[in-house]
Amino acid sequence: MSSAHALLATVSNQPGILFGLTRVLADHAANITYVDIIPHPDRDAEIYLEFAIDGDLEPIVEQIRHVTGVARIEVTPSFSKIYGKRIVIMGGGAQVGQVALGAISEADRHNIRGERISVDTIPLVGEEALASAVRAVIRLPRVRLLVLAGSIMGGEISRAVDEVRQKGLYVISLNMAGSVPDVADLVVSDPVQAGVMAVMAVAETAKFDIVRQQKRRY
Amino acid sequence: MSSAHALLATVSNQPGILFGLTRVLADHAANITYVDIIPHPDRDAEIYLEFAIDGDLEPIVEQIRHVTGVARIEVTPSFSKIYGKRIVIMGGGAQVGQVALGAISEADRHNIRGERISVDTIPLVGEEALASAVRAVIRLPRVRLLVLAGSIMGGEISRAVDEVRQKGLYVISLNMAGSVPDVADLVVSDPVQAGVMAVMAVAETAKFDIVRQQKRRY
Repeated sequence: MSSAHALLATVSNQPGILFGLTRVLADHAANITYVDIIPHPDRDAEIYLEFAIDGDLEPIVEQIRHVTGVARIEVTPSFSKIYGKRIVIMGGGAQVGQVALGAISEADRHNIRGERISVDTIPLVGEEALASAVRAVIRLPRVRLLVLAGSIMGGEISRAVDEVRQKGLYVISLNMAGSVPDVADLVVSDPVQAGVMAVMAVAETAKFDIVRQQKRRY
Repeated sequence: MSSAHALLATVSNQPGILFGLTRVLADHAANITYVDIIPHPDRDAEIYLEFAIDGDLEPIVEQIRHVTGVARIEVTPSFSKIYGKRIVIMGGGAQVGQVALGAISEADRHNIRGERISVDTIPLVGEEALASAVRAVIRLPRVRLLVLAGSIMGGEISRAVDEVRQKGLYVISLNMAGSVPDVADLVVSDPVQAGVMAVMAVAETAKFDIVRQQKRRY
């Protein structure tokens, strides 16, 4: 039976540290599920690791303590339990703010019932910048759904939406000018409702099925 | 002269892959600054790496291509350039939404002038849950400032705020019941203004210095 663990190592800022840490984990056939390198301007960097192992944690902690460059190692609570699933909203500030308002209110209601849903936003302008941000969103950890909030989006942004949808990300678009609404999973006119529906679509405690809503417009 | 690069590897889901990747990077004295493991329910996982090297990128890409378990490797644009600095807002849904509204509008104005500021939120209730989330926030990448938005916060949350401030994170608190306002860098009554000030405090394009505002209340 494999079990999940999280470790936080305080390390010196030099090449090869992550290699040293992952060598210990590989030796114990640990399956690493999450890594974060946390640089600090005024003190040693930290490396946070989540992984699953079949055996005991103790020998791993003991061996990591002796890896070159590791100053300190501690067992910590898992990250994904604290922050949970993420929704990302991007586009123009006015609309992103309204979608966020709906999403945050709805996430609050589900989080009270035991979910952990975060609502992240990036106010951003320009076809190139938005297309890059859409493509990069699938590389962000724990993101389940993207809301595009603006007044006109198309061209390269629509191609980026196509790509990320093929990779399994759900995309909700506000009703707007341009071709993005045509390529999204769902189109919503009211930004607050778009935010609420986005959270309902990822919440286990809601009965909203975005697959059944495919290509609908509200 | 060392230069920054980003790579995205498509890998099989088995122990030891990250060890294989980091071995190649350690061999080339690459300083890894960012790692993300992106699991996918229906296809191969991806590992995203950012690092700085003195020499050429080509030999590294070539060697990673031959690491066991690596199906595909591509050079991609850097993540931190796309998403930039982050502000995190946590607390009760009603207040978090209003702070987000102010922060998103203000981030929009700075992002138009070339900044990249993201506004992330987690609506969350309960002393224990909030204290854990506050402590974990310093392990999130690219986070510069935390806003605590609620009606009453104290006890363990205040101790957590003390800890993260000692580690260099700025904390803005809404004016509220409990001891959190006493331990924050800055206290603001209007949630929209709190969001705007939070963004101004981290923006290079703003003249707001949170160090000069220490312990003020608005």
